[in-house]
Amino acid sequence: MSNDQRPIAVFDSGLGGLTVVRALRRRLPGESVIYFGDTARVPYGPKSAEAVTRFTREIFQFLLHFDPKCIVVACNTASALAVPELVGEFAVPVIGTVEPGAAAAAKASEGGLVAILATEATIASNQYRNAINRYNPRIPVVQKACPLFVPIVEEGREERNPLVRMAVAEYLEAVRRLRPAVVVLGCTHYPMLRGPIAEYLGESVVLVDTAEATSEAVEQLLHDSSSLSNDSNRGRLLCYVSDNTQRFASLSTRFLGHTITDVVRICPEEFATLHQPAPTPRRLRVSV
Amino acid sequence: MSNDQRPIAVFDSGLGGLTVVRALRRRLPGESVIYFGDTARVPYGPKSAEAVTRFTREIFQFLLHFDPKCIVVACNTASALAVPELVGEFAVPVIGTVEPGAAAAAKASEGGLVAILATEATIASNQYRNAINRYNPRIPVVQKACPLFVPIVEEGREERNPLVRMAVAEYLEAVRRLRPAVVVLGCTHYPMLRGPIAEYLGESVVLVDTAEATSEAVEQLLHDSSSLSNDSNRGRLLCYVSDNTQRFASLSTRFLGHTITDVVRICPEEFATLHQPAPTPRRLRVSV
Repeated sequence: MSNDQRPIAVFDSGLGGLTVVRALRRRLPGESVIYFGDTARVPYGPKSAEAVTRFTREIFQFLLHFDPKCIVVACNTASALAVPELVGEFAVPVIGTVEPGAAAAAKASEGGLVAILATEATIASNQYRNAINRYNPRIPVVQKACPLFVPIVEEGREERNPLVRMAVAEYLEAVRRLRPAVVVLGCTHYPMLRGPIAEYLGESVVLVDTAEATSEAVEQLLHDSSSLSNDSNRGRLLCYVSDNTQRFASLSTRFLGHTITDVVRICPEEFATLHQPAPTPRRLRVSV
Repeated sequence: MSNDQRPIAVFDSGLGGLTVVRALRRRLPGESVIYFGDTARVPYGPKSAEAVTRFTREIFQFLLHFDPKCIVVACNTASALAVPELVGEFAVPVIGTVEPGAAAAAKASEGGLVAILATEATIASNQYRNAINRYNPRIPVVQKACPLFVPIVEEGREERNPLVRMAVAEYLEAVRRLRPAVVVLGCTHYPMLRGPIAEYLGESVVLVDTAEATSEAVEQLLHDSSSLSNDSNRGRLLCYVSDNTQRFASLSTRFLGHTITDVVRICPEEFATLHQPAPTPRRLRVSV
């Protein structure tokens, strides 16, 4: 049996990727996780492919210092805009949210309509639609950007708050009228609004949580490459953010279900100082 | 009579500062303006004082290449968090939004209650309250962060949109019950919601538009320092943004009342390459 003690690296534009961490820790409790949240430059959703790709490349280089067994891009926007370009550039396996989310949607749709809910940038990239149509070119796909969902979740509003329910109804009315078979929650923040979205769309719609689909894909990858940890203890979770450690720690409870204490602030400008002495990943490897 | 042809430099975290540009161009049509919008790192509102100060310092250094007659910090968050620290560091006069906004509020309040509406970071800094109390320590001040107002405005929603009206009512109910004499729109995006805010609060409340107050302070400064331009032609407006020139150009119409065509993308990472050869500001001065 394999026993690979290297950590899984998880990257997100901010807090939302903690929904992927939560799913990973449920599924793979013995794995250690290094998390990086780019809270100085969040959100990525309204930004260009060029900027998001540059940010993602910098963060990959930072995460390689930890000698990870894989890098999980938990941010749907970065998965859609940067992963296709970067996946061949680095020696480590990279898993984004788009492929697992698209595969789960294609499987669940049984040929029926799939609606993608995501950020403006993810929608504009068409990556979800293209990925679903690689599985089955005959699945009809519609897409809807929901720009207020991220700030609504980050503000910590309750699911039953009237403004949350109005925003859900306003964004989803045109989607609901098309009677989709499957709706993809194509942003890591959106599972936090699963309750009101499910209620508004009705019971017959299958909701695909890309955080859950992504964690399943990570398990499959580690299994296939014999890279699972067989540690029976709970793995460590170490978090790095580019700004506002306190805000991250206090909001993380909502996303993760428990409080994070190990949060270190490091800004992208400081990544360069880590690179300068060109240390081998081995030497910088942290004990997790 | 003075005839200073140097441009006014205006900086904002994104688009919102264009409300200040609009006010400046109405008041001082012969002045040329260099605008920088940090659209790669927008919004500043939920970020730390340390990050906002670092971003602002970088952008000041960039703007100095244009040999400006003054730098206007149109972003309320940067005015509150960074200007107090940076104002002595640079040889050029710096005008933020907080001092002019606070002065206008103190003058209008006649001792009555002043309510500050702003981003989380501006509220946390207490800069508006402190500035108002320097004018008159007996003016009572309350503060309310309205985190969704910025994404609502950036999404381009109409003033009569039901979600806009619900957000205004939800954020301002507790403020309205206190019957304020003056309400400060302490974020450059908020004047775009002036209609529904005024309607909700009622006619007796004086709304202070910090963009208007700031442009008045700029006129005063240029007059006092004999730095006005006496050009009878309309001044140029050149815009630089750190990301997404197209999104900036299309949304700018809403903020400025006309379309911007001269938008150049330059990211903060590229500022450094401008600094390297240490050119004198004079040589890099653009013809405006």
